[in-house]
Amino acid sequence: MASDEVEGTSPLPHADEHITLIGLGAIGVSFLALHLTYSSATVSVYDPRPDLEEHIQAVLPLYLPSSVDVASLISVGRLNLCASLEEACLAATIVQEQGPENVGFKQKTWSEVIRYVAPTCHLWSSTSGIPASKQLEHLSTTDDKHLEYPPTTDDIQASSARQRLLIVHPFNPPHIMPLLELVPSPHTTPAEVSFAKSYFTALRSGHRPITIHRESAGFVANRLSFILFREACHLVNEGVASAEEIDEVVRASLGPRWAMAGPFKMYGFGGGNKGLRGFLDNIGESIGEVWRDAGTITMDDDAWKDKVVEQTTQAYGLPSAEDIRVRDGGLRAVVKAQEEQERVARHGGGQGGQ
Amino acid sequence: MASDEVEGTSPLPHADEHITLIGLGAIGVSFLALHLTYSSATVSVYDPRPDLEEHIQAVLPLYLPSSVDVASLISVGRLNLCASLEEACLAATIVQEQGPENVGFKQKTWSEVIRYVAPTCHLWSSTSGIPASKQLEHLSTTDDKHLEYPPTTDDIQASSARQRLLIVHPFNPPHIMPLLELVPSPHTTPAEVSFAKSYFTALRSGHRPITIHRESAGFVANRLSFILFREACHLVNEGVASAEEIDEVVRASLGPRWAMAGPFKMYGFGGGNKGLRGFLDNIGESIGEVWRDAGTITMDDDAWKDKVVEQTTQAYGLPSAEDIRVRDGGLRAVVKAQEEQERVARHGGGQGGQ
Repeated sequence: MASDEVEGTSPLPHADEHITLIGLGAIGVSFLALHLTYSSATVSVYDPRPDLEEHIQAVLPLYLPSSVDVASLISVGRLNLCASLEEACLAATIVQEQGPENVGFKQKTWSEVIRYVAPTCHLWSSTSGIPASKQLEHLSTTDDKHLEYPPTTDDIQASSARQRLLIVHPFNPPHIMPLLELVPSPHTTPAEVSFAKSYFTALRSGHRPITIHRESAGFVANRLSFILFREACHLVNEGVASAEEIDEVVRASLGPRWAMAGPFKMYGFGGGNKGLRGFLDNIGESIGEVWRDAGTITMDDDAWKDKVVEQTTQAYGLPSAEDIRVRDGGLRAVVKAQEEQERVARHGGGQGGQ
Repeated sequence: MASDEVEGTSPLPHADEHITLIGLGAIGVSFLALHLTYSSATVSVYDPRPDLEEHIQAVLPLYLPSSVDVASLISVGRLNLCASLEEACLAATIVQEQGPENVGFKQKTWSEVIRYVAPTCHLWSSTSGIPASKQLEHLSTTDDKHLEYPPTTDDIQASSARQRLLIVHPFNPPHIMPLLELVPSPHTTPAEVSFAKSYFTALRSGHRPITIHRESAGFVANRLSFILFREACHLVNEGVASAEEIDEVVRASLGPRWAMAGPFKMYGFGGGNKGLRGFLDNIGESIGEVWRDAGTITMDDDAWKDKVVEQTTQAYGLPSAEDIRVRDGGLRAVVKAQEEQERVARHGGGQGGQ
């Protein structure tokens, strides 16, 4: 996140937690580095890939502060590479999964996990799109508010798991982007949401957990992004501007704007001393015209896809390691600018206004 | 823009230009400061408000480098405050209007302007939404490709004006945001688009003129913004998240991301070594689900408006001068981070990788 250095004097939090990470792809390794760097929790990891140890040795150091040695973490028992899901779960106080994005995998994983872990274990999924309620809907058809008497062991286990599972959705690249969307299902208890929020806040990694009140496709960030992306693809398809030109437009306008304040706060500025109401009164007609005129391309149609892929690849080529390095350096600078902005907003002064 | 200092040694460009600005609201004054600071063009301004001189004296210094004195600019004839549109237009090589956002005003203004200016004068409108073709459609019904013979003076004038008018759309706040959307009508000549592009590029103010190929409601930046805003309002209306929470989500994710790279380049990263095609193949189904589920609120409905206005006002109050100062300081920092990112991308090195 914002800094590779761990805060000086205060001890790292969560010494009593034992986190089990399931699935060590890009998101999994990024979370692994986060827990290892900013907490003192014990971490166990499980991934069925046969080269798990080599993979962790190769990729994890890219996300860790240079002072931290992976082999030492393993030898002191801070990091445990496990050969089975059961072994990984045995001591878990938190299980966080970031495995393949399909419902079948999630459901099968949770069915096993809840047999292995204590009934108080926190259950987190870092899926980018499969709601918590869907990940457990296979477990039992009995609504946990109306358990039959006497309830079966399976019913009790399912009901308890439903109350403990929530989504912890990061934003790519997760080691830099501050967002963590916490999305409970209708069954998740408020205590579980609070626990996840306080867990990530205590890390002081710069991550910002934000609770989403209801499940919906794409949660919030991806949902807004996909909807803007649809219109961007429509504009390319109609020849209004090229993919590269649209990227430049966004980078020169909406990106900086929304890095500093979201749409509601910014449009509140747009209405002057009448705030957002003034903005809607003044510009509402133009906004309505755009809404009526919005593109309606669908994923079933390949013509626009070929066009946007061709233009994007022609403009940038395929992403290189150097491209990612430049992107990440830039993202860090913007997050740092946000932190400075917050400091100025809290304490005033320091930054030239004009 | 990025810097208050004017570049050291090279002389400021556009000494031969005489720019007439019509309409001295917030956008007009911002452009006035831009032309005065970064070019050596002569500037004439016209606005029917009776207190034009006091207004300029009060507001313009807020946008100018502190070394520049408004009274001196006036006394040396660099800045002319004009009592009539005709007077303002007499010597113009460029007329730029940023008057009220209604078609009637635009059409009436251009009807007069083209009677006063030379037939080579460049015509720019800084409207946020009224396309160039609409601003001149009243002038003559004769298509300029099929002038009757002998053509009338009005026909010739209308045809010539249509070829010279294009949109120069800034993004608020225009003295900081780099974007300038250049939007020609189907009649505008490529030479006029090139001239506007080279004019603003030569200023070295940090502004980035981007040519949009076809007129559409909201051009590109506002169009994308309004469409994301619709979904944001829908999510508030459905209780998925509050206005403030959605702002925080955007600020912690999409803002920084799009400040560094637009949607096409960023989603190209998302597909790894298969680029945007890989991204669409992997995530297309989730995207399609969001598209099908997107909100369809309209401007005719007041219920959602009351909700978003109430939540926004409760979260932030009405915008204060201090809020704007903090916003502008932050926006400048992000634009600076973009410039640094470009420097790194061009020359490599300098910036730590992770």
